[in-house]
Amino acid sequence: MKLYSSKLAPSPLKVLIFLAEKKVEDIEIINLNLGELEHKKPEYLAIAPNSRVPALELDDGSIILETTAICRYLESLYPEPNMFGKSPMEIASVEMWYSRVTYELVSPLAHGFRHTHPHMSKMENQNHEFGLAQREIGVKALNTFDEIIASRKFVAGNNFSYADIQMAVNLNFLVRLNRLDIKDFKNLNEYVTQIFERPSFSV
Amino acid sequence: MKLYSSKLAPSPLKVLIFLAEKKVEDIEIINLNLGELEHKKPEYLAIAPNSRVPALELDDGSIILETTAICRYLESLYPEPNMFGKSPMEIASVEMWYSRVTYELVSPLAHGFRHTHPHMSKMENQNHEFGLAQREIGVKALNTFDEIIASRKFVAGNNFSYADIQMAVNLNFLVRLNRLDIKDFKNLNEYVTQIFERPSFSV
Repeated sequence: MKLYSSKLAPSPLKVLIFLAEKKVEDIEIINLNLGELEHKKPEYLAIAPNSRVPALELDDGSIILETTAICRYLESLYPEPNMFGKSPMEIASVEMWYSRVTYELVSPLAHGFRHTHPHMSKMENQNHEFGLAQREIGVKALNTFDEIIASRKFVAGNNFSYADIQMAVNLNFLVRLNRLDIKDFKNLNEYVTQIFERPSFSV
Repeated sequence: MKLYSSKLAPSPLKVLIFLAEKKVEDIEIINLNLGELEHKKPEYLAIAPNSRVPALELDDGSIILETTAICRYLESLYPEPNMFGKSPMEIASVEMWYSRVTYELVSPLAHGFRHTHPHMSKMENQNHEFGLAQREIGVKALNTFDEIIASRKFVAGNNFSYADIQMAVNLNFLVRLNRLDIKDFKNLNEYVTQIFERPSFSV
């Protein structure tokens, strides 16, 4: 299998962490240079028509797009340690927290960054007012999740899961890109620090 | 189990269709009147702190929030007919198409509706310019998915899946709420018509 990845973007990083947690080392990693728009070239568009990384190419030539789809495929092949839960309640909990983290926390912070940051002006049809409103919602969500995480080590239950990869990777990127300081959210700061101490996060 | 639902919103409808496909009939349905803001009352906030429907209350009092999490829990309990795939490739395909439908198609159309429709003016901090830009992206996505669906009966492969529930339910709501006509997208129109002929869609 070949993983089309990038050293800059958070999405492929999530797959690399996922692979490292499972100690899978026999997948070929092909790094695209997004700065030089390698993901927009015809060779890559033939693989990923939506021009996004990551993409997973199987040995029979099939392509899997979308980070979570790639990770679920890898979970089927390498089930241990499980990252999407085992019991019905664990499975529901990982999905629930993945969704809540994504829609309540990551989405407004991502919009806040994409619509206000000068670095994104060429890549996004920026709407500054919308970006500022989303950033404000993101700050509220940071406070909410700071409370949620106060009483737990992992976001979705007793074990490290895919929801933690989603939460820690995105907080690490998006908080500073919104010109915020994670240290202003004590429990989230402790959480992200602790998650990033995992060997898988140094990929 | 009790399902907190609503007769107006697309998200609880997805769970009701999911249950009907599996012929599960022993879950108590509690309909909230969103127009009268029943989902904002303290009784419901104690169940769903994010004030959203659906929510699933288990017999032991545990709560599962988020539509997809509820459906994955129900899939564990009632695995047949499966809606999230069985083989590694099916599982990946349902997740991939669920994600592509959600991010490429549903998200811009939902933003287009929420930020431009007069009915949403009290519920959303509307940004008309952003809404119009998103609607335009949504129209492009409708054309893209009109091509994608031309050669297939179901969006994620050979079988009806959760990705079809996501796609058909949202198209049925969001196309007209963006003041568009699904009939202008011939293949999508045939697809939605065919999916809505399933008995589960008349819940």
